[in-house]
Amino acid sequence: MYIDKKEIEQLEQHYRRAFINSLAGFRQVVLVGTKSADGITNLAIFNSLIHLGANPALFGLMSRPDTVQRDTLQNILDTKEYTLNYIQAAQYKKAHQTSARYGKGISEFDKVGFIPLYHSGCYAPFVEEAVVKIAMRFEDSIPISLNGTVLIVGSIMQVDINDGMVGGDGFVNLSASEVLISQGLDAYFVSKEVGRLPYAKP
Amino acid sequence: MYIDKKEIEQLEQHYRRAFINSLAGFRQVVLVGTKSADGITNLAIFNSLIHLGANPALFGLMSRPDTVQRDTLQNILDTKEYTLNYIQAAQYKKAHQTSARYGKGISEFDKVGFIPLYHSGCYAPFVEEAVVKIAMRFEDSIPISLNGTVLIVGSIMQVDINDGMVGGDGFVNLSASEVLISQGLDAYFVSKEVGRLPYAKP
Repeated sequence: MYIDKKEIEQLEQHYRRAFINSLAGFRQVVLVGTKSADGITNLAIFNSLIHLGANPALFGLMSRPDTVQRDTLQNILDTKEYTLNYIQAAQYKKAHQTSARYGKGISEFDKVGFIPLYHSGCYAPFVEEAVVKIAMRFEDSIPISLNGTVLIVGSIMQVDINDGMVGGDGFVNLSASEVLISQGLDAYFVSKEVGRLPYAKP
Repeated sequence: MYIDKKEIEQLEQHYRRAFINSLAGFRQVVLVGTKSADGITNLAIFNSLIHLGANPALFGLMSRPDTVQRDTLQNILDTKEYTLNYIQAAQYKKAHQTSARYGKGISEFDKVGFIPLYHSGCYAPFVEEAVVKIAMRFEDSIPISLNGTVLIVGSIMQVDINDGMVGGDGFVNLSASEVLISQGLDAYFVSKEVGRLPYAKP
């Protein structure tokens, strides 16, 4: 199949959305936990986590202004704190369900059935069921003027990982815990190891 | 295991790099093909592909100024064109090897053994062996001032996919072709399907 820019623009809208989204490949599923300034918790599924640097430890998240993720962005801008939570494949239906458009003042924790968990020093709730829990502090929001999306940049404040997931070299073994991966808008996967390789030299 | 920002800053450098990189989870492996203004081809492995939007179809790539990916960034800025290539798991050693620091004027296509392929209307080379080939046009470079990285924003100009990978709804089936995924600096995976779900409603 061969398709060019003009033909992509002429695709039916839902087909194009599924095609371009899934074409971008596999990504980490992240449940982003926040709490509004007036105390309403929020949980939203993201698939746009980006590693920006290890020192300082910075992760990015893309936020689109036209989705339910907008509540998450507002809470992050208001409170400067959010959590990143990785869950196991067994919970994929609940994770997907956080993308439903619940009304104002309603928490996805209650509706979907994840348990909020609090650590000292973080205003935002974690997901108790998550095997990886990361507390983030908002650092910067960078507008992508071409299409009105925003890159949220945050620094890692705390990491809480199930025992035994971190190897002697620092590598975090997510595969053994069947951590959930996604592709496109609605497809979920786990990983199967191919191999690890030494640092490449010419 | 529980670790906070201060303890992360005090980790040994290689351990911290492996820890934070792998903590960011799974991502799509992309071989980025470029050609310099004076005709030298370049091929570099990236794991920072970001879906930015479907209409217009925009993808992002993070580039770090301190790596071999710098040649890629320079070629993109000079020629405005680049290709994104997804490969199968069987080729993971060759894909990893493109991250070696070959000298100026040396092409990773020759050294590693991928075959450059040209389509009319794109100056940059594709990878013939790739099951997904995407021609990109550079649109914008957005600096992340916190750590000197750059978000390269590009629009999709052409997509060439192996026959039979695109479903009736537009979904691109990468899993059946064992398209390569990575985690951290050196770990490679394939995907195993968990399921697809309908659009979530409250």
